[in-house]
Amino acid sequence: MTDITASLRGIVGARHVRTGDDIPARSRADAAEIPPCPPRAVVLPADTGEVAEVLRLCHALGQPVVVQGGMTGLAGGAQPRPGEIALSLERLDGVEDVDVVGRTMLVRAGTPLSTVQAAAAEAGLFYGVDLGARGSCTIGGNVATNAGGIQVLRYGMTRRNVLGLEAVLADGTVVTGLNTLPKNNTGYDWTQLMIGSEGTLGVVTRVSLALQLQPAPPQAALCACASVDHAYAVLDAIDRRFPGRLMAFEAMWREYMDVTLRMATQRRPFAETPEITVLVEVALGEGDAAQAAFSDALGELAEAGSIGDALIAQSLRDRQDFWAYREANYEFHRFMPKATHFDISVAPGRMAAAIDMLRSRLEAARPGTILVAFGHLADCNLHLAVYPPDEHQEAEIAGIVYGIVGDLRGSISAEHGIGVLKRRYLGLSRSPAELDLMRLLKRALDPADILNRERVLPP
Amino acid sequence: MTDITASLRGIVGARHVRTGDDIPARSRADAAEIPPCPPRAVVLPADTGEVAEVLRLCHALGQPVVVQGGMTGLAGGAQPRPGEIALSLERLDGVEDVDVVGRTMLVRAGTPLSTVQAAAAEAGLFYGVDLGARGSCTIGGNVATNAGGIQVLRYGMTRRNVLGLEAVLADGTVVTGLNTLPKNNTGYDWTQLMIGSEGTLGVVTRVSLALQLQPAPPQAALCACASVDHAYAVLDAIDRRFPGRLMAFEAMWREYMDVTLRMATQRRPFAETPEITVLVEVALGEGDAAQAAFSDALGELAEAGSIGDALIAQSLRDRQDFWAYREANYEFHRFMPKATHFDISVAPGRMAAAIDMLRSRLEAARPGTILVAFGHLADCNLHLAVYPPDEHQEAEIAGIVYGIVGDLRGSISAEHGIGVLKRRYLGLSRSPAELDLMRLLKRALDPADILNRERVLPP
Ligand SMILES: Cc1cc2nc3c(=O)[nH]c(=O)nc-3n(C[C@H](O)[C@H](O)[C@H](O)COP(=O)(O)OP(=O)(O)OC[C@H]3O[C@@H](n4cnc5c(N)ncnc54)[C@H](O)[C@@H]3O)c2cc1C
Ligand SMILES: Cc1cc2nc3c(=O)[nH]c(=O)nc-3n(C[C@H](O)[C@H](O)[C@H](O)COP(=O)(O)OP(=O)(O)OC[C@H]3O[C@@H](n4cnc5c(N)ncnc54)[C@H](O)[C@@H]3O)c2cc1C
Repeated sequence: MTDITASLRGIVGARHVRTGDDIPARSRADAAEIPPCPPRAVVLPADTGEVAEVLRLCHALGQPVVVQGGMTGLAGGAQPRPGEIALSLERLDGVEDVDVVGRTMLVRAGTPLSTVQAAAAEAGLFYGVDLGARGSCTIGGNVATNAGGIQVLRYGMTRRNVLGLEAVLADGTVVTGLNTLPKNNTGYDWTQLMIGSEGTLGVVTRVSLALQLQPAPPQAALCACASVDHAYAVLDAIDRRFPGRLMAFEAMWREYMDVTLRMATQRRPFAETPEITVLVEVALGEGDAAQAAFSDALGELAEAGSIGDALIAQSLRDRQDFWAYREANYEFHRFMPKATHFDISVAPGRMAAAIDMLRSRLEAARPGTILVAFGHLADCNLHLAVYPPDEHQEAEIAGIVYGIVGDLRGSISAEHGIGVLKRRYLGLSRSPAELDLMRLLKRALDPADILNRERVLPP
Repeated sequence: MTDITASLRGIVGARHVRTGDDIPARSRADAAEIPPCPPRAVVLPADTGEVAEVLRLCHALGQPVVVQGGMTGLAGGAQPRPGEIALSLERLDGVEDVDVVGRTMLVRAGTPLSTVQAAAAEAGLFYGVDLGARGSCTIGGNVATNAGGIQVLRYGMTRRNVLGLEAVLADGTVVTGLNTLPKNNTGYDWTQLMIGSEGTLGVVTRVSLALQLQPAPPQAALCACASVDHAYAVLDAIDRRFPGRLMAFEAMWREYMDVTLRMATQRRPFAETPEITVLVEVALGEGDAAQAAFSDALGELAEAGSIGDALIAQSLRDRQDFWAYREANYEFHRFMPKATHFDISVAPGRMAAAIDMLRSRLEAARPGTILVAFGHLADCNLHLAVYPPDEHQEAEIAGIVYGIVGDLRGSISAEHGIGVLKRRYLGLSRSPAELDLMRLLKRALDPADILNRERVLPP
């Protein structure tokens, strides 16, 4: 035990290896709500070379390593397991280069997403990925989890926004492929395999990102819809009317708004809570003409019966109030019992059935269960928080929810990843041959199985 | 020799194994202009199961296999090498399903791109990839080469339009991952590794595609620009003014237009041939208002000096005439000597320098050389056809062109892939560690090295 920490100190400097009580709380648990566990040590390399040396050492000793970014992951992937060394990217921080003409950015993996967004804005450009954890999550964590968020309908997931990577393989090999070109069909795109592999195939150290032109300021509205199908009709109409301008389309089901309004910090938007409250943003610009165009579109949808009622933001303050509903769930834990969380995806044609089945099967199994559903409707991505009335049976609830996901051929993880929490269920969304192929790739890239062991792949 | 063809006949039926003189010309050579070579046999499986059986057999015998789609590839990847069995996807043809609500399509790998486009249109939708070989190239070939084309600036390359794949590995294992969901972060996305691997890691048998809403009909114009920087100024202005509407931005350099006009089938668009003739299309819809908006934008660019002159299409006929310039290069071989072709990419900030360096270094090495340059400027993708004045020295020309690409940190293959023609140069666009990682992946997935042997990876 002394040996390896001494060697690690030799690589990164004594100050940058923490053990025992020096291990900060943030290195003991991510946002998955699993009981904290201290790693054997936390090591904080300063650069790619030090990451490589750390991994070379751990590989030689068969020492398992957990990779840590901003610790906002919701699947338990960055949370240490007993005996692991935590490799934190915290010190690999900073934007290295912005190419305004080429619209690209080179950034170190430990850089917070919000720093990337700000650097893009400073250059008059825009980074296409945004999510609630923007201030804490890192770009390396975003790449490792192929993070989605609220603008996927417009700019895609992290995968689409990454042009190149530098990564360190389990044995310490540094692989640099920091492509900045929009097209580069030269051999296998190994970076695509790293994206979404949740730290099990390599440690991302630098990222080359594609940037966008800044979109026009959005028009925002809150719409009351009587059903999922009504909400999809709104989506389709807005998408056809304003091609390429839709920026967000977030749905909050009835029970979500009920719980939110119980918090009493927010006003009730509609006299009667509709089946679905939709937050829609369209990059039409500011000014009367833009607002009139938006208002006309919503007016037609109201006439057609797709919308029961709508509120159009008249100010930035209104817009922030709308988003406060959508982000209220971050506070639910303060006055609700413990929930079981899900991040699922089903085809749009099956979305209404999914909600019906979830409500009725949960009610049948546990009368009084509250199903809080919300999410990125344009991406067919539902977040669920399930509150049973009495003592908590996570496995039973997961069985019901994932059973429905399996029946409807949906995904058990739309965007949060598998981590430790969903490994057992991976077979519901992937075929046996796919799982075998994943294991083959893991063995090829990490033969000693040191990187994020016992994560992602099923036991 | 009799043994294996007999076994193949047992798998696919006697009619579907061709040998000797029965081997059609199309199975002997792709579009790379390499002298034809007959394979040992051509085998035409009817479905995924037969592909698997063929590969299981070849794997067991160590028999090398070349995978053949529409044979339009420009890198020599599908062209047989002596002793290979050609596995043609010709009979795996047809659209299996279109989901209008989910905007997805399930299609067999041997289906021509134009069939996919037509099936999407029939469903009131649109497939985002288009290229000149649309009538002959297959969707499987598009996936294998990560094909680009003329709408990459709007919809991305093939990679972005693929949601899932079914593939058969070298040993005959069928891996089915026909995802149709926009978000599905469940373990490694192995399909991303297949895309662009040019048939060296597996045979694609079925593809799940994302479809789009149909864009509005385009406004089209031909613009005369005095330099690359002027052309980029036009691109930037149009992109900012009509966000999400730009559909094509094709550049033809002076020498390209000179050669085209020599064919005498086309009228001269501008009194004096400009440094760059740009074909731009913007999905603004038809009618006077749309044309006025387009014309205003071009008028402002003319006033600002970015455009010398411009022709706006007044009819479909005009639009077709504009595209006839851009597709004239398919006929160059009929009255020009043999050219050496390139498909390179450099950052937009280095594009002007690239053209200058190409012209001057080629002229210095071989006075009188004609450099025909054209391509997808918004994607920084140049196609080059180099015509030296006297006897042809491919290696010398390649040395000059790839030397410049390497100096400017560009790509030796933007979209056509590596195949056999560019293997030797792969190290100019990829680091040694990347090449090692590619070899590791190839060994893991095709340990007997039977699939498209001696292609893509450097000798
Ligand atoms: C309030 C809140 C809102 C959220 N909203 C969204 C959302 O809308 N969409 C969404 O997709 N996610 C969302 N998340 C989840 C989370 O923010 C993302 O998964 C994020 O990408 C994780 O980044 P991180 O740096 O915090 O990674 P961590 O939590 O540190 O790690 C996540 C995983 O990636 C690995 N990892 C981290 N860094 C690296 C690296 N450099 N190289 C290799 N592996 C690495 C870890 O080992 C772990 O397996 C949200 C989380 C919170 C708390
Ligand atoms: C006139 C013309 C215009 C073109 N324009 C463009 C353009 O704009 N952009 C562009 O990117 N390309 C272009 N190309 C190149 C070519 O059309 C593309 O590369 C196309 O994707 C090849 O498809 P194919 O079915 O013809 O493949 P093939 O030529 O048959 O094969 C190409 C490669 O893919 C492999 N392959 C084929 N099918 C499969 C499969 N099912 N599974 C695994 N491997 C497979 C082959 O082994 C080979 O290595 C053009 C070609 C021509 C002739």
